[in-house]
Amino acid sequence: MNATTDSIREFIEGNPDLETPYLVVDLDIVGARYQSLADALGDVALHYAVKANPAPEILSLVLAKGGNFDVASPHEIDLCLAAGARGEQISYGNTAKKARDIAYAYERGVRLFTFDSLGELDKLVAHAPGATVMCRVLCGGAGADWPLSRKFGCEPPMAVELLRAASRAGVAVGMAFHVGSQQRHPEAFDVALAEIGWVASELAADGIELAVVNVGGGFPAQYHEAIPSPGEYAQAIHCAIGTHLAGRSPRLIAEPGRYLVGDAGVLVSEVVLVSSKSSMEERRWVTVDIGVFGGLAEALDEAIRYRISTPRDGGPTGPVVIAGPSCDSMDVLYDKSDYHLPLALSPGDKVMLHSTGAYTTTYSSVGFNGFAPLRAHIVGDRP
Amino acid sequence: MNATTDSIREFIEGNPDLETPYLVVDLDIVGARYQSLADALGDVALHYAVKANPAPEILSLVLAKGGNFDVASPHEIDLCLAAGARGEQISYGNTAKKARDIAYAYERGVRLFTFDSLGELDKLVAHAPGATVMCRVLCGGAGADWPLSRKFGCEPPMAVELLRAASRAGVAVGMAFHVGSQQRHPEAFDVALAEIGWVASELAADGIELAVVNVGGGFPAQYHEAIPSPGEYAQAIHCAIGTHLAGRSPRLIAEPGRYLVGDAGVLVSEVVLVSSKSSMEERRWVTVDIGVFGGLAEALDEAIRYRISTPRDGGPTGPVVIAGPSCDSMDVLYDKSDYHLPLALSPGDKVMLHSTGAYTTTYSSVGFNGFAPLRAHIVGDRP
Repeated sequence: MNATTDSIREFIEGNPDLETPYLVVDLDIVGARYQSLADALGDVALHYAVKANPAPEILSLVLAKGGNFDVASPHEIDLCLAAGARGEQISYGNTAKKARDIAYAYERGVRLFTFDSLGELDKLVAHAPGATVMCRVLCGGAGADWPLSRKFGCEPPMAVELLRAASRAGVAVGMAFHVGSQQRHPEAFDVALAEIGWVASELAADGIELAVVNVGGGFPAQYHEAIPSPGEYAQAIHCAIGTHLAGRSPRLIAEPGRYLVGDAGVLVSEVVLVSSKSSMEERRWVTVDIGVFGGLAEALDEAIRYRISTPRDGGPTGPVVIAGPSCDSMDVLYDKSDYHLPLALSPGDKVMLHSTGAYTTTYSSVGFNGFAPLRAHIVGDRP
Repeated sequence: MNATTDSIREFIEGNPDLETPYLVVDLDIVGARYQSLADALGDVALHYAVKANPAPEILSLVLAKGGNFDVASPHEIDLCLAAGARGEQISYGNTAKKARDIAYAYERGVRLFTFDSLGELDKLVAHAPGATVMCRVLCGGAGADWPLSRKFGCEPPMAVELLRAASRAGVAVGMAFHVGSQQRHPEAFDVALAEIGWVASELAADGIELAVVNVGGGFPAQYHEAIPSPGEYAQAIHCAIGTHLAGRSPRLIAEPGRYLVGDAGVLVSEVVLVSSKSSMEERRWVTVDIGVFGGLAEALDEAIRYRISTPRDGGPTGPVVIAGPSCDSMDVLYDKSDYHLPLALSPGDKVMLHSTGAYTTTYSSVGFNGFAPLRAHIVGDRP
């Protein structure tokens, strides 16, 4: 599968002198992805994870599709409101928020918050009275290319304690989890929802019912490896809910980010140099004008491996190390991942990095080594 | 040693409501560091590595002290020229440059370039006629906290070939190396200069003399571990030059960055949350409002370990994981490094991260998770 669409190709070919690196995002792909996931998940409300790509055109499209939003900060709330969202369409999913940021959200109508600790619950009770608070539980992250295993969530027994305390404080309670970003194994949802089910049973014994369950994100983009369909994720989620939350009817939400926008983006970069370190080494070093500080932070540790196409494809290839443009040795994209690129590849060639619509523009540094932040261009039908 | 100066302390205390996170840089420290290194290194011309911190006030100070600059990009050239530098005071140290960026530099008077490959030499010969080209050799980076070992430089035998080709093409030749950033072992310079000496001998057999030798950077800031004095580095460098370049007299330059500005900066951050994952775990999680995507990229893999002070210092402490504010599990500053912080530390407390003047502001993302880039404030006497 080649993720380049006609709209993206026309934009690139129509702007041969546009300064690289730049990203092109096709809204038609975003819309199609939204629809396919919404259709598959049925009664699960979609809250787009704004951090994946906060371009105003994308937020407007999600809104036009009937979607909601999940945010990490006050600025992301502002972006959603500017796109026309109402506060109650926004969940504030960051588990560590400043007290004044909670108040800021609450004043703007946000009523759904995530937490995973007593300290955060105290802040929510004080600054978001009457809101619904979702306790996030730890998830192993096994099977995810970008695991979110340790930083977020608490152990299930602590979740029971925290939600009892929340209920006593008079707020409605829910639960949340995240199976890890780019999660290629739908069965991960069953493992997580079994934990949710156990917590729900413990709470039910106290007469506390979960108002909402947030099944998180993790729906993958198409990088190198094959990925399951939205239907396979939907089946795993609905089956696990039937098993572990039988007889309960919490409102269900999900937070797709990467799945909606990842494959909608193509990043265009120029080859700066093709070199070797010694006459003994077969592998070439290919330096391109985008690196881990210019927007490809997810290539750190080679976690996310983007597909790359070049104008020399079809000819003989050889092994390469692919490096970014800065004077920092950490700015190497792929060394251990056994990338091969055409032997004819030369400085000045424009290469395309596919499925780069998620977690690129906002990761870009403000100007490390004096390089400008990654620019984005939007193509496709606007809502 | 506590790197907070009176000027920095007064700024912080005088601005209690300033939004965090922010960096304060004391120019007096930058000036003192410049002077001590210049005095110790004697006849080695200093080219400040602009990428460490390109604040205009710092560039002006370096210029007033008689210093020169090393740049990584056209934008950094613009910054130096805007500060009043002349093109011939600038070396262009990035080994992978676009052909048009070389031409841009050359048009502005830059005459000193670094390279490490035939492809780059071809570009330099074509676009920077009459310049001096320094071939960078690979350095192991052993003993450096932020090694620069594999990405930059070629093997010495290839350097000989490349410099022969450069000489045939009519450009003046030199050599460069870098012992690794935050290099705490001065003897690393001897290892590198032995390589330079070997290359110089090979070239001399062809009647080619090195016009310049760039001993790079690596001079450390004061993080947790003790560091040698500038005098110890100077002695190691001069001794190695006497041994390995005996009878030759290349112009000598160095590229200090971190050493001049690292200890001049203090980063102020607010504690967002103190939490635990379960009732069984003694370690607390301390979330602060600065993380690896907000400017502390050098904390990735816990490579650079900043000293942290808090308003609760003096009371009992306990082990902590220190995390950044974003919804990304990679945004953890210190987990394995056994940091301890006061048990009384609470949300809203302002903590100081010391020696954060280098490689922070420009590493900051443009807005990951909607968080604004790191702001910097300059204190101390302006030149």
